[in-house]
Amino acid sequence: MLDKSAIVDRLARYVPVLDWGRRYDRDALGNDLVAAVIVTIMLIPQSLAYALLAGLPAETGIYASIAPIILYAIFGTSRALAVGPVAVVSLMTAAAIGKLAEPGSPELLVAAVTLAFLSGVFLILLGVFRLGFLANFLSHPVIAGFITATGILIAMSQLRHLLGISAGGANLPELLMSLFEHIGEVNWTTLGIGAIATAFLFWVRKGLLPLLLATGMNPKLAGVLAKAGPVAAVVLTTLVTWAFDLSETAGVRVVGDVPQGLPPLTLPSFSLDLWATLAGSAVLISIIGFVESVSVAQTLAARKRQRIVPDQELIGLGAANVGAALTGGYPVTGGFARSVVNFDAGAQTPAAGAYTAVGLMVAALLLTPLIYHLPQATLAATIIVAVLSLVDFSILKKTWLYSRADFTAVSVTILLTLGFGVEIGVTAGVLISILIHLYKSSRPHMAVVGRVPGTEHFRNINRHKVEIDDTILTLRVDESLYFANARYLEDSLYDMVAARPHLRHVVLMCPAVNEIDMSALESLEAINARLRALGVSFNLSEVKGPVMDRLRRGDFLDHLSGKVFLSQHQAIIEITAENAHITETDPHPQERTSP
Amino acid sequence: MLDKSAIVDRLARYVPVLDWGRRYDRDALGNDLVAAVIVTIMLIPQSLAYALLAGLPAETGIYASIAPIILYAIFGTSRALAVGPVAVVSLMTAAAIGKLAEPGSPELLVAAVTLAFLSGVFLILLGVFRLGFLANFLSHPVIAGFITATGILIAMSQLRHLLGISAGGANLPELLMSLFEHIGEVNWTTLGIGAIATAFLFWVRKGLLPLLLATGMNPKLAGVLAKAGPVAAVVLTTLVTWAFDLSETAGVRVVGDVPQGLPPLTLPSFSLDLWATLAGSAVLISIIGFVESVSVAQTLAARKRQRIVPDQELIGLGAANVGAALTGGYPVTGGFARSVVNFDAGAQTPAAGAYTAVGLMVAALLLTPLIYHLPQATLAATIIVAVLSLVDFSILKKTWLYSRADFTAVSVTILLTLGFGVEIGVTAGVLISILIHLYKSSRPHMAVVGRVPGTEHFRNINRHKVEIDDTILTLRVDESLYFANARYLEDSLYDMVAARPHLRHVVLMCPAVNEIDMSALESLEAINARLRALGVSFNLSEVKGPVMDRLRRGDFLDHLSGKVFLSQHQAIIEITAENAHITETDPHPQERTSP
Repeated sequence: MLDKSAIVDRLARYVPVLDWGRRYDRDALGNDLVAAVIVTIMLIPQSLAYALLAGLPAETGIYASIAPIILYAIFGTSRALAVGPVAVVSLMTAAAIGKLAEPGSPELLVAAVTLAFLSGVFLILLGVFRLGFLANFLSHPVIAGFITATGILIAMSQLRHLLGISAGGANLPELLMSLFEHIGEVNWTTLGIGAIATAFLFWVRKGLLPLLLATGMNPKLAGVLAKAGPVAAVVLTTLVTWAFDLSETAGVRVVGDVPQGLPPLTLPSFSLDLWATLAGSAVLISIIGFVESVSVAQTLAARKRQRIVPDQELIGLGAANVGAALTGGYPVTGGFARSVVNFDAGAQTPAAGAYTAVGLMVAALLLTPLIYHLPQATLAATIIVAVLSLVDFSILKKTWLYSRADFTAVSVTILLTLGFGVEIGVTAGVLISILIHLYKSSRPHMAVVGRVPGTEHFRNINRHKVEIDDTILTLRVDESLYFANARYLEDSLYDMVAARPHLRHVVLMCPAVNEIDMSALESLEAINARLRALGVSFNLSEVKGPVMDRLRRGDFLDHLSGKVFLSQHQAIIEITAENAHITETDPHPQERTSP
Repeated sequence: MLDKSAIVDRLARYVPVLDWGRRYDRDALGNDLVAAVIVTIMLIPQSLAYALLAGLPAETGIYASIAPIILYAIFGTSRALAVGPVAVVSLMTAAAIGKLAEPGSPELLVAAVTLAFLSGVFLILLGVFRLGFLANFLSHPVIAGFITATGILIAMSQLRHLLGISAGGANLPELLMSLFEHIGEVNWTTLGIGAIATAFLFWVRKGLLPLLLATGMNPKLAGVLAKAGPVAAVVLTTLVTWAFDLSETAGVRVVGDVPQGLPPLTLPSFSLDLWATLAGSAVLISIIGFVESVSVAQTLAARKRQRIVPDQELIGLGAANVGAALTGGYPVTGGFARSVVNFDAGAQTPAAGAYTAVGLMVAALLLTPLIYHLPQATLAATIIVAVLSLVDFSILKKTWLYSRADFTAVSVTILLTLGFGVEIGVTAGVLISILIHLYKSSRPHMAVVGRVPGTEHFRNINRHKVEIDDTILTLRVDESLYFANARYLEDSLYDMVAARPHLRHVVLMCPAVNEIDMSALESLEAINARLRALGVSFNLSEVKGPVMDRLRRGDFLDHLSGKVFLSQHQAIIEITAENAHITETDPHPQERTSP
């Protein structure tokens, strides 16, 4: 029988709060509260801005920051991750639901919570079935390229708010065309506010911290204040717009009425049609969100020697998204900027997230009337400054130098994301990574090898001075043998055999063959039969233990016209000895078979 | 300047007729003519039957056997392949176009030729861009499973013709439900004809040849006559149906009016909507057709030591399909049964195919009135007997014994093909092969190794009695390092390091690492940084030449806290020596770095 603490220990694997919650003390509470205050202040403008980026009402962003953050605190494994709306996922949400309903319509809100629900369920299923490894099929360079391209798309999509015009589009050509069409409608007051806010925010990023430090301020406090720059921009531009009533007199678009109150309880739609429409987007959003979140969480955990459990992270993020679906939000994930702020501000446990949620609830209850006059241009400026830090083309140079295959995958991802939008871009990125990998392993490196004189080593005849025997062909294949390269091996080997009229023995040297699947086994059987018909024996050497175990299960070894040698050296010794013997006694070497 | 014969030689690579055509002699002519007569007789009922299987008018099958066979003779590389309608592709055609238009409507014919056109263009593009290797992503077991399941579906779909009822469906549940619903409408005369024809055809396959041989007949002639069994069934049942006017008096469904004349000239539709609808099916049909055709062609070529050029085959089959599209046909490929008959009948060159085409043209001009009274049940019996030879579940047993991964791929392919039809089945088969391969390589075999006492060999500590040193961890990874397993390597290594408190050095042994992609390189950099922070050096050993060349292009080696050793033996010697030195002189080993 398990005693109580053993049960709790076991449960704690799936509900990490049971682990850290038991050890929670006053010290952690203090640190967490400070971090929560800082993150709350930062999150208010950010959440509003990302909701607008997703094409949703501003308050949706606040709602999406409350329940998800609490649910992640219960089920997630990262101590510092801050979950909520993030730029890339917001843009992907806009791409997924933007065409389904009119902006501001109730249908759009239903689509948003349904998308969050589907993402959440998908993430939880991945977690329960321990399928987190699927996220690894997004290669690092593809992610880097995708994030860079998405950053550009987001910045371009926000330009219209800075210019005060109506423009839109899901990809760069559409965005550029649309901006160009509406460029005559620029609202100069809006542009003025937007340009000043943007310039101010850029300066805050680079110039404010040194300035504060120069005044002799405590570096930690200075760091916090420097992060609060966006709040200053929000407050100042809101005051100016309110003071001069710019929304009425100059047509500056403002956030306007935001309902005051706690997040509403909402239900996702259970229409199978809508599910079918959103399923693909939900999968992409889940995977991108998961990859982004896990890499942030791992980076932060590594700094404190903590561990992230990816499969449990799926459950934490899944719960957060289901929470968003039930409280009027939209898809969320762990955000880079907010998590770093949380970490730097000293958050010790996920409880910091829960306190942040309380802060945001207070904001939703009390502060929403104050942001009526907040210009949309200010929020756009916040987003532009934030996402431009995501844009980093250095991955192109790095991959160009290192590997053309990776370079191709990155370039295609960037071009397709810019040209056709986020969903096609990331899908293409995954597919091209996999295709390139399969293509490379479908044409494996093969080397005809010979003996380095005076040694037991065998090396590529094209790279080294080696001894070879006209009657023996030794081919080393530097790849596992499987369906994608089985035919290639057959074709290459037949060509080599055809070019060597004196050939009597073929040895396939397998030190780098980690697997032989059924298709490859059939190819080996075909090679064996074909060579036997030509009077050439077929031998293997240096077959790995697990591969040999498997070969023993079928009857391939019974039909093999040659032998399996433990080492290539032994293969050459034995075959040469046999050759000498046959030359003396047996005029028909092609009829000889070894069991 | 190239002289004329050099130009012809070069052209002959792309138009193989220029090669064999120049050497064509009276001998070859005689052999080809005999083969053509035999294949023509066999093709007439087969072509009609497959057209009905595809849901098209019977004459479409004849048309699809004329132009394609000639075009393949010009562009294809196989000497014996007979191109035309085949069972699997006919069923896939039915699945692709069946829902687009009413049976017998002109729209359905347009869809059929458009599908052939798209397949043809796709095949030609694959050939021109030398992408034939893509077909290798269909693993042998998946193809075997798919063909077996398709054979069952085809046989089930023909049962309605044997029973004389109206039933249909694209997958097994639909077919069974539909047969069950209409089972009360059985036409007993039709069933009688069908049952007798089926029994006769089964007997022909097994019993006729021994009988003919027992009469002392020339074995070659006996073989030919045995293949002509279906023709006897066609002639006899047609005569009976005509004599008793069974189509009028007993409601036996017959082929009916078939237009007399040469194949019509047709044009595919150029509607982009229709193209979009058919594109996916065209791709699947092309690939399945190509795989089936190439494997037949290679089997036959091997018997005569001839060579098939897969990329040129794509062009030959593509041209054949474009030909089908322009002459009222539907998608075609190289068929197994007809090619074997052609080969066995002594066809020496593709000209045999051209003579077959002439024979079929004569049939289309003169014989079509004679088949008015041919019962559809006879054609169904022909198909059933032919496809049941495709059904072979032994692949399940073979893969079960050899590899659970291959078994899973086959089972899923069979179940999904039966349950959801051919298109979903084959798509799932390809995807699951690739996923399983990626999954396996994403969790590569890794072994902690130690030195076999008294040797320079290093072996798995779990399989062998070896010497290890507490301060050194040597990990051998038996797989290329790439995006799908980079994270797994990191996680596994961190776990091992955490479990070894005395560790000072990690050696990654890479004899089976055939590639390190950008994602894996980033993981190695992360490992290096993490280990350095723990005061553990990170070393590599036995890195392959091409991998080392690539590592030298970046700055990874400059940051590496340890060294790259040519052999694992050398790594242990040097590290052990260094350890001893450090223990004497350096109290802070973690601050030491080797360039």
